[in-house]
Amino acid sequence: MEEMEDRRRVGYHIHRDVMGEIEVDSVAQKSEVNTSLLDKFKESMRCSGPRAKSCFLSSVPLLFWLPRYPFKENVFGDLVSGISVGIMHLPQGMAYALLAAVPPVFGLYSSFYPILIYFIFGTSKHISVGTYAVMSVMIGSVTERLAPDSEFIVWTNNSNESFIDTAAQINKRIAIAAAVTFLSGIFQLLLGLVQFGFVVTYLSEPLVRGYTTGAAIHVMVSQLKYMFGINPQRYNGPLSLIYTVLDVCSLLGGTNIGTLVVSIVTIVCLVSAKEVNSLLARKLPVPIPVELITIIIATAVSWRFDFKTLYEVEVVGEIPSGLQPPVLPDFSLMGTMVGDAFALAVVGYGIAISLGRTFALKYGYKVDSNQELIALGLCNSVGGMFQCFAISCSMSRTMVQISTGGKTQIAGALSAVVMLVILLWIGSLFEELPKAVLAVIINVNLQGMFKQFSDVSGLWRTNKVDMLVWLMTFILTVLLNPDVGLAASIAFSILTVIFRTQLPKYSLLGQVPGTDIYRPVEDYNQVVQIPGLVIFRSSATLYFANAEMYADHLYEKSGVDITKLLVHKKKLEAKRLRKEKKEQKKAKKEAKKRAVEMLEAPELSDKEEKLAVAIVAEPELDPCCDSGLPKAIILDLSPVNFLDTVGLKTLRDIHRDYGDAGVKVLLSGCQSCVIENLEKGGFFNDKVTKAVLFSTVHDAVLHCQQGDTKEAMKGTHF
Amino acid sequence: MEEMEDRRRVGYHIHRDVMGEIEVDSVAQKSEVNTSLLDKFKESMRCSGPRAKSCFLSSVPLLFWLPRYPFKENVFGDLVSGISVGIMHLPQGMAYALLAAVPPVFGLYSSFYPILIYFIFGTSKHISVGTYAVMSVMIGSVTERLAPDSEFIVWTNNSNESFIDTAAQINKRIAIAAAVTFLSGIFQLLLGLVQFGFVVTYLSEPLVRGYTTGAAIHVMVSQLKYMFGINPQRYNGPLSLIYTVLDVCSLLGGTNIGTLVVSIVTIVCLVSAKEVNSLLARKLPVPIPVELITIIIATAVSWRFDFKTLYEVEVVGEIPSGLQPPVLPDFSLMGTMVGDAFALAVVGYGIAISLGRTFALKYGYKVDSNQELIALGLCNSVGGMFQCFAISCSMSRTMVQISTGGKTQIAGALSAVVMLVILLWIGSLFEELPKAVLAVIINVNLQGMFKQFSDVSGLWRTNKVDMLVWLMTFILTVLLNPDVGLAASIAFSILTVIFRTQLPKYSLLGQVPGTDIYRPVEDYNQVVQIPGLVIFRSSATLYFANAEMYADHLYEKSGVDITKLLVHKKKLEAKRLRKEKKEQKKAKKEAKKRAVEMLEAPELSDKEEKLAVAIVAEPELDPCCDSGLPKAIILDLSPVNFLDTVGLKTLRDIHRDYGDAGVKVLLSGCQSCVIENLEKGGFFNDKVTKAVLFSTVHDAVLHCQQGDTKEAMKGTHF
Repeated sequence: MEEMEDRRRVGYHIHRDVMGEIEVDSVAQKSEVNTSLLDKFKESMRCSGPRAKSCFLSSVPLLFWLPRYPFKENVFGDLVSGISVGIMHLPQGMAYALLAAVPPVFGLYSSFYPILIYFIFGTSKHISVGTYAVMSVMIGSVTERLAPDSEFIVWTNNSNESFIDTAAQINKRIAIAAAVTFLSGIFQLLLGLVQFGFVVTYLSEPLVRGYTTGAAIHVMVSQLKYMFGINPQRYNGPLSLIYTVLDVCSLLGGTNIGTLVVSIVTIVCLVSAKEVNSLLARKLPVPIPVELITIIIATAVSWRFDFKTLYEVEVVGEIPSGLQPPVLPDFSLMGTMVGDAFALAVVGYGIAISLGRTFALKYGYKVDSNQELIALGLCNSVGGMFQCFAISCSMSRTMVQISTGGKTQIAGALSAVVMLVILLWIGSLFEELPKAVLAVIINVNLQGMFKQFSDVSGLWRTNKVDMLVWLMTFILTVLLNPDVGLAASIAFSILTVIFRTQLPKYSLLGQVPGTDIYRPVEDYNQVVQIPGLVIFRSSATLYFANAEMYADHLYEKSGVDITKLLVHKKKLEAKRLRKEKKEQKKAKKEAKKRAVEMLEAPELSDKEEKLAVAIVAEPELDPCCDSGLPKAIILDLSPVNFLDTVGLKTLRDIHRDYGDAGVKVLLSGCQSCVIENLEKGGFFNDKVTKAVLFSTVHDAVLHCQQGDTKEAMKGTHF
Repeated sequence: MEEMEDRRRVGYHIHRDVMGEIEVDSVAQKSEVNTSLLDKFKESMRCSGPRAKSCFLSSVPLLFWLPRYPFKENVFGDLVSGISVGIMHLPQGMAYALLAAVPPVFGLYSSFYPILIYFIFGTSKHISVGTYAVMSVMIGSVTERLAPDSEFIVWTNNSNESFIDTAAQINKRIAIAAAVTFLSGIFQLLLGLVQFGFVVTYLSEPLVRGYTTGAAIHVMVSQLKYMFGINPQRYNGPLSLIYTVLDVCSLLGGTNIGTLVVSIVTIVCLVSAKEVNSLLARKLPVPIPVELITIIIATAVSWRFDFKTLYEVEVVGEIPSGLQPPVLPDFSLMGTMVGDAFALAVVGYGIAISLGRTFALKYGYKVDSNQELIALGLCNSVGGMFQCFAISCSMSRTMVQISTGGKTQIAGALSAVVMLVILLWIGSLFEELPKAVLAVIINVNLQGMFKQFSDVSGLWRTNKVDMLVWLMTFILTVLLNPDVGLAASIAFSILTVIFRTQLPKYSLLGQVPGTDIYRPVEDYNQVVQIPGLVIFRSSATLYFANAEMYADHLYEKSGVDITKLLVHKKKLEAKRLRKEKKEQKKAKKEAKKRAVEMLEAPELSDKEEKLAVAIVAEPELDPCCDSGLPKAIILDLSPVNFLDTVGLKTLRDIHRDYGDAGVKVLLSGCQSCVIENLEKGGFFNDKVTKAVLFSTVHDAVLHCQQGDTKEAMKGTHF
């Protein structure tokens, strides 16, 4: 017992000593928090004097790493890797241009300019930036929404027939894609400059995987028309995917047989070639560029047998050679695409940074998240001026870049050189390539994304709430389209934090015998509840969404219904008042009687009389004893992260209600920020001092037991 | 030292014993959680057999409390209170009907039917249900959106003039108000039946107060036209309040002088009468019904001097006597008002339950939140059939009901009787009452709500995040209107949970000397960091929004940059490989040399040679020693409420990265739900066993120190 008390005293003193300091520290800390953002901003702006050089170097990483490039060691790997990736860019760029609903050559541009810029400004050595299916389909939804077929219908003068002015529509779509890309780049630049790289933390892994899977469905559906050679109506807004699928199904009767044959043959060839590739993966130094071979053969066959005119197979069409001068994007379009551009900025960055980080960790270097934002922002804003569409980085190309020995951004730069060669001299050779082949390439490449469906069963076992996030993100993305779906998914994933903390587990704690450890009595059968004390803990933080439940469960678990208690107290008081009145009346009567009896009965001594009164009065004066109340309630607040007004009010109410009933309420395990919240919220006053705070549950228990001892000692004195 | 070890052992054993049980318990607990909602639902549906009676009693509380009504004690208070509140209902009902944009008599209906129904089904004894300004203005926004002036313009045949078909418009508006009321009642009933009373927890106090203040602005602005006698254009959608104010300002030139004079006189009289009332509050048993007196005088004066025709003052108009038969609401309208009806349901319930709870706590009884939902749902759905508009409860009437001695729902029933008398015989007397008087009554009554502005300064001192919730709710409500504003505010208040936990405080913990208490070293200057150990704690739970920061801060605080470490390790390995190659070459050379030198130098003993090699090799073989790594990292997870996939992955990465570098990572203070998350998430495997879990930080520290002792002992053995 002595040892225990000693232990307690030490704990308590420390706790009291420390209180004064917290205030000082907390003020210092707070001002730090308030200014840190500003400081960061200033820091990022204030690049003058001696720091200018390092600041400049950090914003143009190329200048830092290129002079130190270990030429002999890396150059061969980078060369092979660069050429392999460059070859991949050709079919992917053209295919993803279909997704974005612009002519294929713009996919080639998008695989050239942004890569050069990333080479200069990027910090990841391994990711292959460039066209990406999800981004392309997002662009596609913007271009198709803002330049629908209905706007370009031209009525012929003579008859009632109409046709769509395809040339005007394509020009509009190119302008739209460039504008939204430029705007998303500006968003990324701005976010990077104010060091808001952390926004990506809202894109948790289950969300990103659910999102990309949902987007893959959109990608697949948008390619069906090319694979079947049909022309379904365009739909926009929520559920447009469903309408499109229904429309495609109803149009299947009008399938272009030539196109369908091309699709089927390509699928069979591509899938089997990929299988061979993966079987031989270990033996080959460089994977076979199956997609390149596919488009070369398909172009040759299509040209030789004139698919276009004989079978009405839709082909890629004109691919102009050479590059085009930059033009400023059409600013007048931007008002209607702010949301889309922001979604593109966040998604593009989210995909790139998560891939970049993965490989940075694997190969032991650092990716600067804000510099990445700036690099991607420059890629997209400059790219937008060269009529590229928004880029991110592709998992498949990145894997090839790494597996073929790519070690630095040089590989990326070399792949851009390959693209330049293609753009200048080779591109126009592919004019006879059937679009169906590109659509098949896209859909076969999607298989990796569809493999993500297996996440669901994994998450079902490991974390059901995260599975819910995955599924909801998937469903929302499929139903509401990638742009609105992303916002809705992020909102939902934030809401899960509420779900997870709204229904916490409430427990009474008991002591592990012989230790100062307290554990929930329902989890552990060896722990012992301390008689006369209620030790209560919620597994989650205490805030508006669960504050009411906290109080309810405390009342329930402690077996003390505070409402009944107060009613009981009131009744007792009323009873006492009535009794007092009665007794006053009685007293008058008795006074007379006594005068008579005085002579008969022997008088009680003063002390004896007091004792008797005490015995009679006790059960009524002390409501604790007769309603089986605990002596004290100890609230273990160690899982509490913060206290909002509602949580604070709940604690105050608990303290007041039990206090009224004569039960002490002690708080233990508060973190310093919680104590700060209590202080600022006015929890402490003349009546409630900081003496109710204890370092640990054990300290509070010892305090109560010490109190008992004192009272017991008082008792013996009396 | 012996004592410490002993202490540790006890703690450790308990921890290990307990693990097995957790699994069993957790399964039981989980299935309980999954079924509890269903059970509740079944329970609420399954009212048969012996429980039927109590179930019936609990759903019709009247049957429970009326037979036990203490007639003698309560009847007088309830009578006075009922009449006082009934008298208040008259002006408020008529005034709030203006807000709802329906004729005044429907405000009187709304102050009659719902009150009778609440008398039967309600559980709060003190709240005065009936018309409420915020609800009325929400109804008004629906009626005005769905029945705008533009729909009822009738062009006269002869000229180009047009007029608005007021009669048709009013009929449409009445139908709309009744339909939305009916639908909101159905929502409340449904929520009550599935026991979803807890939805109201999302309406935290700062949110409700910010919301009612914002709604008060809408109420005030909507009354300006009656006070000035002008007719501004109707606006809908976001920012409509701003447009309305601008329109009112531009129309001020056309103010009706008669109406303005009536308004000013009424304001002066009402405000001074209210002041007198509050001064005399203590002396009077019943407050003076200033509003009733005001409308009586105003009606008399308006009738006597014929304001309507002489000064073109707009008056209340026809008030039909008697009651109307119920009609089914127009179901065809309901598709367009689902959102509004849901907002009405939530707001109405939120206001009523928070007032009800406040007084229940004060007077020591219980308000059943689900029964309240059902009661309000019946009030509104039945009320909707009698063409009432949605009701809630009003603070001002409730205060009067209590201060005049109302003790039970009987007071409410009596106030309904007063309303019945008014409806049957007196109502039509008020036809000449100027609408401006009602508008003034509304605006003067709003002063209580505008007093809530002082919340902001209070919250600024106590809790800045809650102040932000208040302000954002206010701004969103003002700008986006009460319906959309409510949804946006709830979303924002949920987002604040993220704000509060996204930027936690990360600390290294040190030991309070001589105790088993560990505290942040930056907060307390007496604590001592344990050499060779890093004890790390985040003040908030670990989840997707802060998981990355957790790892970053751990690396920073522990002084161990894991990226550099891995790079360093790789370099060391490469160096070793190079050295090995060199040495192999050297060895060949030396073998020759040695054969020569053999005869000259004295040979080292085998043991001496080993030692020398060890001395040379040591600094390179053990990266821990030369990079100043800690021996172990202890993560105090006691503030963690739950682990999601991202948090788990972070812990796994930390464990793996530091493990690779030879640093042990121990977890302490995990709650059982966190351990469950770790288990299910596959954190534990052959390499990572549950031995990394410790009850408290101290246990983990003792474990590490024990390890040291063992190693030291090993050392001595060698």
